[in-house]
Amino acid sequence: MAYGSTIAAISTPSGKGGVAIIRVSGDDALRIAASVFFPKNKSSLLDASPRMQIYGDIISRGEYIDDGMATFFRAPFSYTGENTVEISCHGGILVSRAVLEALLVAGAMPAEAGEFTKRAFINGKLSLTEAEAIGNLLDAKSREQMKLSALTSRERLSSHIEKIRTALTELLSSIFARIDYPDEDLGDFTNEESVERLFNIKEAIESLLATYPTGRAISEGIPTVICGKTNVGKSTLYNAILGEDAAIVTDIEGTTRDVLTREVPLGRVMLRLSDTAGVRGYEMADAVEKIGIERTRVAISASELIIAVFDSSRAADAEDRELISLLSQANGAKIAVLNKCDCERRFDSGILGDVFSDVIEICAKSNEVAAVGALKRMVEGLFTDEKITVGEQAVISSARQNAALSRARDFVNAAILAFQSGEYQDAAASEVERALGAIAEIDGRSVSEEVVSDIFSKFCVGK
Amino acid sequence: MAYGSTIAAISTPSGKGGVAIIRVSGDDALRIAASVFFPKNKSSLLDASPRMQIYGDIISRGEYIDDGMATFFRAPFSYTGENTVEISCHGGILVSRAVLEALLVAGAMPAEAGEFTKRAFINGKLSLTEAEAIGNLLDAKSREQMKLSALTSRERLSSHIEKIRTALTELLSSIFARIDYPDEDLGDFTNEESVERLFNIKEAIESLLATYPTGRAISEGIPTVICGKTNVGKSTLYNAILGEDAAIVTDIEGTTRDVLTREVPLGRVMLRLSDTAGVRGYEMADAVEKIGIERTRVAISASELIIAVFDSSRAADAEDRELISLLSQANGAKIAVLNKCDCERRFDSGILGDVFSDVIEICAKSNEVAAVGALKRMVEGLFTDEKITVGEQAVISSARQNAALSRARDFVNAAILAFQSGEYQDAAASEVERALGAIAEIDGRSVSEEVVSDIFSKFCVGK
Repeated sequence: MAYGSTIAAISTPSGKGGVAIIRVSGDDALRIAASVFFPKNKSSLLDASPRMQIYGDIISRGEYIDDGMATFFRAPFSYTGENTVEISCHGGILVSRAVLEALLVAGAMPAEAGEFTKRAFINGKLSLTEAEAIGNLLDAKSREQMKLSALTSRERLSSHIEKIRTALTELLSSIFARIDYPDEDLGDFTNEESVERLFNIKEAIESLLATYPTGRAISEGIPTVICGKTNVGKSTLYNAILGEDAAIVTDIEGTTRDVLTREVPLGRVMLRLSDTAGVRGYEMADAVEKIGIERTRVAISASELIIAVFDSSRAADAEDRELISLLSQANGAKIAVLNKCDCERRFDSGILGDVFSDVIEICAKSNEVAAVGALKRMVEGLFTDEKITVGEQAVISSARQNAALSRARDFVNAAILAFQSGEYQDAAASEVERALGAIAEIDGRSVSEEVVSDIFSKFCVGK
Repeated sequence: MAYGSTIAAISTPSGKGGVAIIRVSGDDALRIAASVFFPKNKSSLLDASPRMQIYGDIISRGEYIDDGMATFFRAPFSYTGENTVEISCHGGILVSRAVLEALLVAGAMPAEAGEFTKRAFINGKLSLTEAEAIGNLLDAKSREQMKLSALTSRERLSSHIEKIRTALTELLSSIFARIDYPDEDLGDFTNEESVERLFNIKEAIESLLATYPTGRAISEGIPTVICGKTNVGKSTLYNAILGEDAAIVTDIEGTTRDVLTREVPLGRVMLRLSDTAGVRGYEMADAVEKIGIERTRVAISASELIIAVFDSSRAADAEDRELISLLSQANGAKIAVLNKCDCERRFDSGILGDVFSDVIEICAKSNEVAAVGALKRMVEGLFTDEKITVGEQAVISSARQNAALSRARDFVNAAILAFQSGEYQDAAASEVERALGAIAEIDGRSVSEEVVSDIFSKFCVGK
């Protein structure tokens, strides 16, 4: 990919709509756009004032395509940080494609997935964490995911990381000063001060790391199975959970990345329901068959949340016991749901033993809201920290960020040890340098091209 | 629908994309948009310069939604002719919906399908023919359809109709002057001049009417069946026709209005292929069964173009004769395609009789391009006028326009007769008035609310 090149793509979703936007970015953006877009007032787009929408005709090689608006954004005051022109035209599939083709004919290259945002990153308009959040924003399937990726959240995370980086940089230059001029007391901090600062930095890193379980539960979601015998009310419960946000779930059918799981928001938490027999009509009758048991065992062992539904109006039987025994070997959090609590209790909850972290009694059929509410509070309690308010504080949500921060914490710990054990300043300096490197990976100042490519490949073309 | 109200909708297609646009239009558009969009420079959107894109935050009831751009278009210099604000945000489904909801909470009403364009029409920004063309532009499935609906075409048609209207109006006022002041010779034109002018108007109307078959073939398309025995090469021919524009055809799957027909461009002409046994694997063996014959007969009788494929390498048999006999009773244009012309000829084309308007010999398998080319020229010759260049002259394409123009021509004829038969000027005046009424229907100056609603209901929401 040549970064000097000028790229173009349709930036609005594909399909029939009122308006489509075609974006051109790069050194030649204005010249290329001006060769296909002709303002109605007979001036040239080359003379356009930045950020002003201009009405005109889109013409390619003498063929009239459409009328529309064009806006020029002068570098660096654009999304990508490069010269950019956005052309909006009538939202037909053919029309928007014809405008894009006109720009390609005029010399633009077709943009790759996420290439506009990648250029924004390369041009320093965005950090890598911010770019990741924008990618998540486009994919957001719950309000909480949306908030987690909104600008305020992006800025809070960036500024938190920036503070850690600044503190590490200050400390490092102080240590270097003492190494270079040991007699002149040039370092800003004494050893004791350095250690105190390292503890503060460690605390800042750990407070961010502590947000990961919550961020992950919201963003990536929790691998979940709902299991239980026939007719205990699994489907009723499932539909009740869906009911709340059904519109969102059905809308994203086509955009779900992994067709084998279904993403269903339950309060703040996104459940990633496995599409197994255990979810869509799990039958204990089948479980006696070897293949059935095996499939269920795989689903259960891969889950971090297991919601086991029992019918409290019937006495526990061999199948219930079999399920409980199966679950006793699983690692995930287990919630026992005793359904039909409005009927006379015949289920002996003693057989649940200590397999489940929580037991709730619900009546899914007659009171959906209460049933889902109880489950929601329980799941939120298990997987998120209620003290964390998304949008009002820095929250990390990707495994990549978590791993880099964990490494940074470990290097900071090593630096503390170096000071405390009276080792040479060099050892401490080298650990602080490593911590800085790990932090630089998070915001993308130092990160492999592979990681960058991986992040942007998940974007759509036109972003 | 209250036209004073302010409406809002997502104007970009639904789905994941880089950018989404939410449009607000109406008296309160600026106030409503300013209550959810806050420029980064701390000023208010209320102070925004028209047409200038401003970067800011979208916040609803204290909840941060997204960052984005907003542009204010001051009435009447907007698409609708009303005060309009366009907000662009990150293109997630949830994000764009949250921005729309914020605007609705702030007082906007959800826009109905086509309501922005309907308001443009009501506010005199567009004639009804132009609005119709914009609707067609969004739906365009071929380049020719796109050209037919582009601004240049829209303007040419409007200006042609405007000329006819002006000529009729001048004539009418001249006739009225003579009626009111018979002795003072106040009318601009003598009776002879009036008749001459009426003939000119009639010619202008008829030249426009003459474009309808071409416009309709491009826009509405020609009901078509491809028929023939098994293994004569129907599918090969069908795929060869598709091949040219396959990308377009597959892309519109979801947006096709009528699922029972498939729209396939063949050169300038849009074929509306009936989805019958006759198209998807028509088997003459089935045709002996009563139900098979009946289904084929219905498809054939409803078609305006029948493409019958024969295998020229095999002698005609009873099935071929049966098909020819069936077609001899049909009204549509019939083309006989003798396929496999590279093999030795065994088919006696004498049996085709005079049933077919044209016979072409092709070899669909070995030379797709030539085969489709021959068929394309033939179909274009049958249904379009090669002298008509879409985009460079006024072309009508809707049954509504054709009907109104036909009525206008009849009234003009009646006015000519009134003059020629020496009737009172009143009779001529009343016919000219009627002609004006028919013309007014075309551009929507005088048209029923029902017709208007029908036209705009075909739009998508957000246009």
